[in-house]
Amino acid sequence: MSSRRVRVAVVGLGYWGPNLLRNLVEAERAEVVRICDASADRLRPFGRRYPAIRRSTRYADVIEDDRVEAVVIATPVSTHFKLASVALRAGKHVFVEKPLAASSDEARALVALAEERGLVLMPGHTFLYSPPVVFVRQLLESGELGELYFISTSRVNLGLHQPDVSVAWDLGPHDFSILRYWLDESPTYVSALSRSCVLPNTPDVAFIHLGYPNGTIAHIELAWLAPSKLRRTAIVGSERMVVYDDTSAEPVRVFNAGATLRDPESFGEFQLSYRTGDIVSPKVEGVEPLLVQMEDFVRAIREDGEPRSSARIGLEVVEVIEAVDRSLAQNGAPTSLSATAQVAA
Amino acid sequence: MSSRRVRVAVVGLGYWGPNLLRNLVEAERAEVVRICDASADRLRPFGRRYPAIRRSTRYADVIEDDRVEAVVIATPVSTHFKLASVALRAGKHVFVEKPLAASSDEARALVALAEERGLVLMPGHTFLYSPPVVFVRQLLESGELGELYFISTSRVNLGLHQPDVSVAWDLGPHDFSILRYWLDESPTYVSALSRSCVLPNTPDVAFIHLGYPNGTIAHIELAWLAPSKLRRTAIVGSERMVVYDDTSAEPVRVFNAGATLRDPESFGEFQLSYRTGDIVSPKVEGVEPLLVQMEDFVRAIREDGEPRSSARIGLEVVEVIEAVDRSLAQNGAPTSLSATAQVAA
Amino acid sequence: MSSRRVRVAVVGLGYWGPNLLRNLVEAERAEVVRICDASADRLRPFGRRYPAIRRSTRYADVIEDDRVEAVVIATPVSTHFKLASVALRAGKHVFVEKPLAASSDEARALVALAEERGLVLMPGHTFLYSPPVVFVRQLLESGELGELYFISTSRVNLGLHQPDVSVAWDLGPHDFSILRYWLDESPTYVSALSRSCVLPNTPDVAFIHLGYPNGTIAHIELAWLAPSKLRRTAIVGSERMVVYDDTSAEPVRVFNAGATLRDPESFGEFQLSYRTGDIVSPKVEGVEPLLVQMEDFVRAIREDGEPRSSARIGLEVVEVIEAVDRSLAQNGAPTSLSATAQVAA
Amino acid sequence: MSSRRVRVAVVGLGYWGPNLLRNLVEAERAEVVRICDASADRLRPFGRRYPAIRRSTRYADVIEDDRVEAVVIATPVSTHFKLASVALRAGKHVFVEKPLAASSDEARALVALAEERGLVLMPGHTFLYSPPVVFVRQLLESGELGELYFISTSRVNLGLHQPDVSVAWDLGPHDFSILRYWLDESPTYVSALSRSCVLPNTPDVAFIHLGYPNGTIAHIELAWLAPSKLRRTAIVGSERMVVYDDTSAEPVRVFNAGATLRDPESFGEFQLSYRTGDIVSPKVEGVEPLLVQMEDFVRAIREDGEPRSSARIGLEVVEVIEAVDRSLAQNGAPTSLSATAQVAA
Repeated sequence: MSSRRVRVAVVGLGYWGPNLLRNLVEAERAEVVRICDASADRLRPFGRRYPAIRRSTRYADVIEDDRVEAVVIATPVSTHFKLASVALRAGKHVFVEKPLAASSDEARALVALAEERGLVLMPGHTFLYSPPVVFVRQLLESGELGELYFISTSRVNLGLHQPDVSVAWDLGPHDFSILRYWLDESPTYVSALSRSCVLPNTPDVAFIHLGYPNGTIAHIELAWLAPSKLRRTAIVGSERMVVYDDTSAEPVRVFNAGATLRDPESFGEFQLSYRTGDIVSPKVEGVEPLLVQMEDFVRAIREDGEPRSSARIGLEVVEVIEAVDRSLAQNGAPTSLSATAQVAA
Repeated sequence: MSSRRVRVAVVGLGYWGPNLLRNLVEAERAEVVRICDASADRLRPFGRRYPAIRRSTRYADVIEDDRVEAVVIATPVSTHFKLASVALRAGKHVFVEKPLAASSDEARALVALAEERGLVLMPGHTFLYSPPVVFVRQLLESGELGELYFISTSRVNLGLHQPDVSVAWDLGPHDFSILRYWLDESPTYVSALSRSCVLPNTPDVAFIHLGYPNGTIAHIELAWLAPSKLRRTAIVGSERMVVYDDTSAEPVRVFNAGATLRDPESFGEFQLSYRTGDIVSPKVEGVEPLLVQMEDFVRAIREDGEPRSSARIGLEVVEVIEAVDRSLAQNGAPTSLSATAQVAA
Repeated sequence: MSSRRVRVAVVGLGYWGPNLLRNLVEAERAEVVRICDASADRLRPFGRRYPAIRRSTRYADVIEDDRVEAVVIATPVSTHFKLASVALRAGKHVFVEKPLAASSDEARALVALAEERGLVLMPGHTFLYSPPVVFVRQLLESGELGELYFISTSRVNLGLHQPDVSVAWDLGPHDFSILRYWLDESPTYVSALSRSCVLPNTPDVAFIHLGYPNGTIAHIELAWLAPSKLRRTAIVGSERMVVYDDTSAEPVRVFNAGATLRDPESFGEFQLSYRTGDIVSPKVEGVEPLLVQMEDFVRAIREDGEPRSSARIGLEVVEVIEAVDRSLAQNGAPTSLSATAQVAA
Repeated sequence: MSSRRVRVAVVGLGYWGPNLLRNLVEAERAEVVRICDASADRLRPFGRRYPAIRRSTRYADVIEDDRVEAVVIATPVSTHFKLASVALRAGKHVFVEKPLAASSDEARALVALAEERGLVLMPGHTFLYSPPVVFVRQLLESGELGELYFISTSRVNLGLHQPDVSVAWDLGPHDFSILRYWLDESPTYVSALSRSCVLPNTPDVAFIHLGYPNGTIAHIELAWLAPSKLRRTAIVGSERMVVYDDTSAEPVRVFNAGATLRDPESFGEFQLSYRTGDIVSPKVEGVEPLLVQMEDFVRAIREDGEPRSSARIGLEVVEVIEAVDRSLAQNGAPTSLSATAQVAA
């Protein structure tokens, strides 16, 4: 394990890449040595701001530069597989924006390639580094919530439609990765309802049902059309309930509330009592998730470890999205994750 | 058309019946002449309060009393069919609490019976008389919302579990009747996900997808388990969006917001503009829905008209609930309303 | 100490009296034997509801009835003194709606009379029986809040203007009694700003400053004109802060927040650290304050004790209101409570 | 009127100066030619970011540079007078952060100096460029609100204590300048209550009453200690009421609500009706107030005009703060603005 800083190249400086770049510059154990974008215009302002970083419009320059140990890719989804596999083949660690790839086949191929070469492959599921999300995971791990009954989440706002991907491919990875991180498993089956309201063949609203092996069920609402922004998740357990709301000054609220079946053996009587106690908004630290994410990437490289946002999670997220698409193609039929077959009635 | 007051009997004075009774007493064109409950204990306090109303523990007394023109039934769902059909056969108009009956077969039989005899049969879908619901209906009728894209609604709180019916049978009729009233049509297909969290075989959370003939889609979340009470419906149209929230001091909010495809013929370019304008909380009158409902019942009797909460709506609501149950029995497969067959993939 | 029920007469059945009557009927240790109102029309409906209670339009009937041990007065403020003193002179315990009397002279005379005769005299400061108010008092008593820095409260809504009293006489008693209960002392001085916006010579908005012997300061905003209803009180202590909001589903919220001066001896340096920790909404029991208030009245009578809403508090509340009026007459000059002189500059 | 860009120097690059610098760089009609700070360390990062701008630790360099037409001062309040007067004497236009100076004598001297030399002197009352504040001013100008009864405002949060100035000097200028801009006049008298809770002799909470010539009254609550951030202003007029909340996604809400005296001549009867109609959240444009402010500065210079945040307003704001301090020194006595004498009782 070396303490030397990881030399990184950032590829793609459109909407999101500059955020990754800024946080990599701040990350202690990273050193950005190159940036790359097909458009010279896009590169120019960064030249002024970061004169020490080399700029190039050719990806080959990045790949051929032996100093570059790791490539951070923030290009359109359709290019993820090609750019990442070239980098992995060149022996470079890879961070790639979410979703990991445009299909589970591509994602699986990347995972295999990274394992083969002993390289880090990390998708940018930033929410796994968001303090409220981490807090809820700890609550779940502690058992404090009791049995996890169900999760219901809304991620809606007005905009931003993507021209080439559905709302499930664009916003879905956030919730699918969060659920995967919280539950430590992927859903068994998925069913979905969606509509292309504004653009043809581009679903901009989706309602998604998920069923998990342990009995937990979940519902996700995603939309680029909404009267107001909602980022609200209700997590209902037998002992505690939690509301996670990313737009609130109190992003996590823990409710000591529930229903208990009393004396269930008494003559088949219906005996239910409701409990409502204190509500606590725990203090959640205000770290910048993007910075923690990039630090986890370089840590994983230096320590031969796995990042929290692992390639495995990245692959499973793509599998869930594909299952959503399959369900939509079958008019909303519940679809198992592992196969193309519909869940038997 | 007579202006004489309609002589009514109220049957069932458990949880809900007293509310109907109180509002019937207040309704100008109604006169409560009898109340009936199997339990004499339940009847007693009403004797003190309404000494002029005759009390009886036998339903036959109600049926045999020729003065009674209309029967208002607030008994358990399983008894609706029997009590209502006896009353209709005796030539009495019938109001019955929601849902109209315990199955669509029963509901259909009641509808046929009422039509045959020329009697009013009215289910207690009280929300159709709630001012915010009426206001939204008027907005939809006016065309102000543009094309109706989708509706998403949450009706959740902690309690009250019913021992013998699911959350879909208990809370579902509210939203199914509201949607029916707003859209003037029933869904083509339904799919659902639910779980019996607390009581065995009693689903207390349900996520329901609905698809309508005109392309509108809807999602309904129902739960007796929730960290906090939600009664929120988002209605998204191409020109306006509406939030209807029954728990808010501003129950209807109209958002001048949307996304517009500009110049869609230009070279397949992606040209979308977002519009966010004023938000208006219109003044909504504060009438008591239950009173308006009971007045509509007696008006329909006297004017040979149909109540807004019609028998037809009552039947269709039961059909939707049955479709939900069929979908649940098929692991969430989308189910058409008219047949038992699953919607083909 | 007798366990016999206290025989009570309720005098005044206008806006508020019926609420007192209803709760006295429910109170276990009280028995309402008479009701009295100058208007026979007002009495009539109660005759039907409570046939066992004697009705009268003459106050003398109440006073002359030896069975009546206690009189509950809910008449206009201007009549409080006369009705209460007659009752006390007749040896009857007295409950009188807030404010205790129309002047501190009157209030003092009533207090003296009650003490002389050994009778209970209790003003109707209902908020002292409101669970959130009691909860905050317990927090203050426990020392958990640390030093109490200041309190800021808003009690505003649209309506209801009173034709003959100012907003300070109408709404002020709520906050003045709550502050007296929390702080266990009256303010040293008061200053006020008000305006008669709608009716001439009837201030309908008032901003009131209060200074307390222990250094705590308070601000109260009262208005019958407001865009929306506010019932919000912030209580800021050195260790904890509290928001009490009577309109919220979480009426008490405790904030672990504050500012601490670190190492204040270090070279006169400015060393301040801010602390923001958990926020807790404690479960507050949902009892009916009016019922608890009336039970406290009969308890005080039977146990020769003092009610929480004591005559002393009632007197001090009137003294504060008079000081507010004196300050207003002096263009808002700070006015000491005990004297008519202005606080010296 | 020249269209040449105004050559500006920014002096003071501590907490706030960098924001002014950033916006001046963006402003089309400004050209930042110099930055100055006593600390070379503070200047250094800006050298990297803006290599074309000259840096200096000596203020004299700024004053002696003939290219510099205008000086933008963001240094501690105690230095405002000295730095601004030197610049004005050197014939340079001056922008100075709020408050304009540490006393009204200083402020008056600066105003006189600027007038004498025909130079722009502008204090940084940024809120006068905030879209919601401008929107409310337009509402007031339009007469839509009717007679302006009163204004109540809260500006509280936890932090940031200033070591050398009170909360009234730090936060007060925001509200005093907003009120001056809305009402077009200064208050006649002021009274205040405050407490130094955390630091000795540094009031960190203040309640301030203001009376205006036209009868409007206002209340301002300022605090560095608060359980949660509040930025709420209620503006109550006879025809409309407005809530301006800077923390809300709907910063301006207009309430069609009020109370009307009906038929006031009828026999002295009390006839009041309440009106509650629609509530509208108008769309308010999302421009950056700081940028608009700096553009107004350079516009005023080029067009020989007066900036919206005029020297006159800056002076009056300081006069109000001084009146607050005088009232506090007199235990909260109402104090006229124009004289040191207390308002006569």
